[in-house]
Amino acid sequence: MNLPDLGQRRIILLTAGHTDHGRAKTAVNLLRYKPSEVVGILDPSHAGQSAQSVFGIGGEVPVRASFDDLPPANIALIGIAPSGGRLTSDLRQQVVDAIQHRLHIVSGLHQFLNDDPELASHARKHGVLLQDVRKNMERDVANRSGLRSACLRVHTVGHDCNVGKMLVSVELTQALRKIGVDAKFVATGQTGIMIEGEGCPVDAVVADFLNGAAEKLVLAHQHHAVLMIEGQGSLTHPRYSAVTLGLLHGCMPDALILCYEMGRTHVSGMDGIPLRSLNEFRVLYETMANLSHPCQVIGIAMNSRRFTTSEAAAERDRVQSELGLPVCDVLRDGPSALVEAIFNRSRELGHAWPPPQ
Amino acid sequence: MNLPDLGQRRIILLTAGHTDHGRAKTAVNLLRYKPSEVVGILDPSHAGQSAQSVFGIGGEVPVRASFDDLPPANIALIGIAPSGGRLTSDLRQQVVDAIQHRLHIVSGLHQFLNDDPELASHARKHGVLLQDVRKNMERDVANRSGLRSACLRVHTVGHDCNVGKMLVSVELTQALRKIGVDAKFVATGQTGIMIEGEGCPVDAVVADFLNGAAEKLVLAHQHHAVLMIEGQGSLTHPRYSAVTLGLLHGCMPDALILCYEMGRTHVSGMDGIPLRSLNEFRVLYETMANLSHPCQVIGIAMNSRRFTTSEAAAERDRVQSELGLPVCDVLRDGPSALVEAIFNRSRELGHAWPPPQ
Repeated sequence: MNLPDLGQRRIILLTAGHTDHGRAKTAVNLLRYKPSEVVGILDPSHAGQSAQSVFGIGGEVPVRASFDDLPPANIALIGIAPSGGRLTSDLRQQVVDAIQHRLHIVSGLHQFLNDDPELASHARKHGVLLQDVRKNMERDVANRSGLRSACLRVHTVGHDCNVGKMLVSVELTQALRKIGVDAKFVATGQTGIMIEGEGCPVDAVVADFLNGAAEKLVLAHQHHAVLMIEGQGSLTHPRYSAVTLGLLHGCMPDALILCYEMGRTHVSGMDGIPLRSLNEFRVLYETMANLSHPCQVIGIAMNSRRFTTSEAAAERDRVQSELGLPVCDVLRDGPSALVEAIFNRSRELGHAWPPPQ
Repeated sequence: MNLPDLGQRRIILLTAGHTDHGRAKTAVNLLRYKPSEVVGILDPSHAGQSAQSVFGIGGEVPVRASFDDLPPANIALIGIAPSGGRLTSDLRQQVVDAIQHRLHIVSGLHQFLNDDPELASHARKHGVLLQDVRKNMERDVANRSGLRSACLRVHTVGHDCNVGKMLVSVELTQALRKIGVDAKFVATGQTGIMIEGEGCPVDAVVADFLNGAAEKLVLAHQHHAVLMIEGQGSLTHPRYSAVTLGLLHGCMPDALILCYEMGRTHVSGMDGIPLRSLNEFRVLYETMANLSHPCQVIGIAMNSRRFTTSEAAAERDRVQSELGLPVCDVLRDGPSALVEAIFNRSRELGHAWPPPQ
């Protein structure tokens, strides 16, 4: 269920000791994209510090050990993504405390809070709601019809999980809107949905209806000029390749932006599984995408956060010349190279909106 | 929930007017593989006929308009697969009647009978159970580890839905067992599970856990010498490609058998979407399979049921020479060409069990 209109949302993030951008990506991205809404972070293991010092983002937002030490709030939001989407026991205790403090709960876990009779009755008793962002009843199959050809569908794909596909989608949407293009961020994961306020948690859809859910999402928003459709996982990911392909086939992109993290050589969080080269990924994504709709990789989004500016610049030049595609780190370099690539693809398809070259 | 031990199962199939092998595939395959258990078919639109005359299989099993005209039974089994797995209103009425006649209900629909409060209370009142074969709580991700290399994993894949992947898997399992090979049919769909009595309905698993569910299934049965793993959908299917890839990556096959229906040129049940050539499918499946585990297409299973013997023979020769692979229709030609291909692949991998060449 959705939360009622709370007027100003004042969110406390629950992070349970996790600080790395992979595990705590929901918290990090709420700090990045909802700075006016996040008032504090509950995390006993980093109590007394600031968001900036713990997560490298979020400025002076306080990290504290108890709700009583944090500013008044109306929402507690689970800011981490534990393996398998399960509610760990320490996190569960914090949710119980939050309910006691009369905070509504927002959760992106696979394990639904509303299915926990104790939490549900505790929430009822304290007059708060439990919002399970991943809960869905998607039951429609894809039909591959009804597309509006004047809408450009751009999809971010990756060489692995947690490389910044959502971030690139949001940054490009914002950049396009800033110059007057009617662009829409189409969220497909729990964090994106929390930021955008709508979307479909495709990884939580029953497998037979995954392609259909992605297609429905595209059809619902195609009155916009450009859709920036958030990607999930990777076509080579041992765990999540099904999600990646269902989304890729269902959303029928005209253009792909291949996102990768500089320096990452192996699948994150799994031992000894090497990642393929960027060019192999390009071929793989184009091959699979073209099974549903004519599509090209139009640019590379590099995540260079572990490297210096000069190392990142050297990598950017190398990849650019190797693949013959525009490359940028949207945070470091700004997104203009990829915005231009989007313009080019739209011109190629004969759309009316992009400025003449 | 599973049914109690009923001693001898006496099944009545509900087919609601559907007779084609696509829509009524559950009924057709129960008639084929559980002939001693199926005592009758409830179908008012074909009442008075025999299973053989309506479905081309099942001999004198009677098709009747009411339960009272059918032999005594203890199970009513929904024998069709409506689009989206929904319970149609006429089917629902038959389920109500079946419960009234004190029959347990077996359903492979996505829409769970146990979630229907009226059906659930009706069943309780009459002391029968509702078994939703697709119901699952799969919540484990894949780990790509723990494989027993002495077990050969053979996976049937297809150019489309409803081409006979399950049938080929069962026939090859039976053929291998007949010559003393410890082979196991690994069911991944509702009909296969009804026949084998176990398995995982992978298309009903939450997408994030699909690869993991397939991997678990393989690990659970790898004490056998050969696993014949039932495939689902197709890598190019607009609706079900996610299911196909999650299963392919999760079950990590050593060998693929590519199944197709002779004469089918377009995706079944969808307008105007052409199928690719068999060789394109071979390349596509090998490419995607090898992302998780070394794998080859070792043979082609042809479904030639719409053609004459001589037409089928000509097609078999043509495909065999075009692809350089063994080809057979397992029902028409027997499965020996594919059994030999399985032997060869196992010898290639250094397994101890296959007879010397």
